[in-house]
Amino acid sequence: MTATAPQFDNYNERVAQGLQQAHELEGGLPGFLGIRLADYWAGGMRFEVEVRDELLTPFKNLHGGVLSATVDHALGTVCYPVMPKGAWAATTEFKLNLLAPVTGGTLSAVAQIISMTKRTAVVRIEVSNEDRLVCVAQGTVLIMLPKS
Amino acid sequence: MTATAPQFDNYNERVAQGLQQAHELEGGLPGFLGIRLADYWAGGMRFEVEVRDELLTPFKNLHGGVLSATVDHALGTVCYPVMPKGAWAATTEFKLNLLAPVTGGTLSAVAQIISMTKRTAVVRIEVSNEDRLVCVAQGTVLIMLPKS
Amino acid sequence: MTATAPQFDNYNERVAQGLQQAHELEGGLPGFLGIRLADYWAGGMRFEVEVRDELLTPFKNLHGGVLSATVDHALGTVCYPVMPKGAWAATTEFKLNLLAPVTGGTLSAVAQIISMTKRTAVVRIEVSNEDRLVCVAQGTVLIMLPKS
Amino acid sequence: MTATAPQFDNYNERVAQGLQQAHELEGGLPGFLGIRLADYWAGGMRFEVEVRDELLTPFKNLHGGVLSATVDHALGTVCYPVMPKGAWAATTEFKLNLLAPVTGGTLSAVAQIISMTKRTAVVRIEVSNEDRLVCVAQGTVLIMLPKS
Repeated sequence: MTATAPQFDNYNERVAQGLQQAHELEGGLPGFLGIRLADYWAGGMRFEVEVRDELLTPFKNLHGGVLSATVDHALGTVCYPVMPKGAWAATTEFKLNLLAPVTGGTLSAVAQIISMTKRTAVVRIEVSNEDRLVCVAQGTVLIMLPKS
Repeated sequence: MTATAPQFDNYNERVAQGLQQAHELEGGLPGFLGIRLADYWAGGMRFEVEVRDELLTPFKNLHGGVLSATVDHALGTVCYPVMPKGAWAATTEFKLNLLAPVTGGTLSAVAQIISMTKRTAVVRIEVSNEDRLVCVAQGTVLIMLPKS
Repeated sequence: MTATAPQFDNYNERVAQGLQQAHELEGGLPGFLGIRLADYWAGGMRFEVEVRDELLTPFKNLHGGVLSATVDHALGTVCYPVMPKGAWAATTEFKLNLLAPVTGGTLSAVAQIISMTKRTAVVRIEVSNEDRLVCVAQGTVLIMLPKS
Repeated sequence: MTATAPQFDNYNERVAQGLQQAHELEGGLPGFLGIRLADYWAGGMRFEVEVRDELLTPFKNLHGGVLSATVDHALGTVCYPVMPKGAWAATTEFKLNLLAPVTGGTLSAVAQIISMTKRTAVVRIEVSNEDRLVCVAQGTVLIMLPKS
């Protein structure tokens, strides 16, 4: 892309660090999927998921819902370190294309904010499995500011 | 819609019945989410998910990934009773809009095939929570025919 | 859908009438496409486009861009009669599936707001050609309120 | 993206050259929009559109339909030089996010095939206006092989 990348003047790395630690303890759907926050930078994060047998369908392919839930999770999470303190990120829509079946190994999901205003962020997500791109997604997060 | 609805000449209700029973035993992601196949008809299915505490985020809203994984699951499953015997349904893309937060109760996800060719089906999914529409989605399934 | 439909308390039919008249005079892309506002109601509108030869590709199918531009146009326009006075509708995203080729006749595009908050509207659009559904879309409009 | 890029073994640059010349003569919607094929490479193309006054809305912003029609056009066109001879590219779905209003200058739309099988190609499109990213899209093209 030749266009200028967005700036993230509010980037707070300590928020990202806190989210990374929180993921290690996380229950619920992220805990079931085993989503780890593997890396982070201003405007971006990389998540990992081990493709364990429990996440496969009876046909021994990864259930597509693992990918879509990981995309949804990444969409909202990537916004927290660059939002004003106290703001809340609400995923409002996304679209994904599934590019290839997954049968094992590790998923690596890179989420990058490609556009950000006071009210919204647009995020792109690329999921690879070993060296193969298996899912691309783009979506919108509404930024809910704290009532002052 | 004033347009003519698609016909489902291959509809096999016994396939739908078998899928309904299979859901009761299902493990993996559908089992964790607790997806039930509540109803079915030619070209359509209705799924239910109880919004139990384990599916909420720490903010006590339903994790968006529960909705997207349910959408993904419904997309592929709804095609089986209307496909030729031995065919395989591969969800290839979908898009969803999240319309309102969910905090409890039951999700009811209605999947309806709105267009079908030999190679693809386009499916629309509407998820309501009690009497409120909370998610709308549309996506494409590739129909993989068995090698003869 | 079993969910309760949204209410449109601000519906102003005179705004819709004004838009209908404006379409008759419209230049630019809507004028080139020949988009007519054929009907309107609270939260919905129906547009028509004649499939004239100039809108076909060299292969004699309707250029897909005619459908996507009509969808984009309908998305924003349908919001005006139900928004607060002075507000501005900015289409922020949409997704469409093209279901069948179009070679002639008239397009009928029904746009219906399926969810609306103070800040956003989610709209579904179905385009039929004679009695055949040829395109389904869903998208989001940001409602920009006038500065007070 | 760390994943391996797709290979385009069938890339035929002469097809791209022919398409570039054809765009100069093109009528219909691409002609009205003034879409030029500015550059091409294996698996990718760059298109340009001048934002002339006729493409603006009465509010003096570029009509969103110009962007969506350009995206639709790019999606199909980028596939021709890498498809088997005689094949036909049918855009079947896409999704776009509009990131910023456009009021003048030139649009530069880069289309890149990010995944390709015998039956489908998934394409990503980024549109910038001067040095600003204004639209991102991803979509699917069905590859229709000639009957042998």
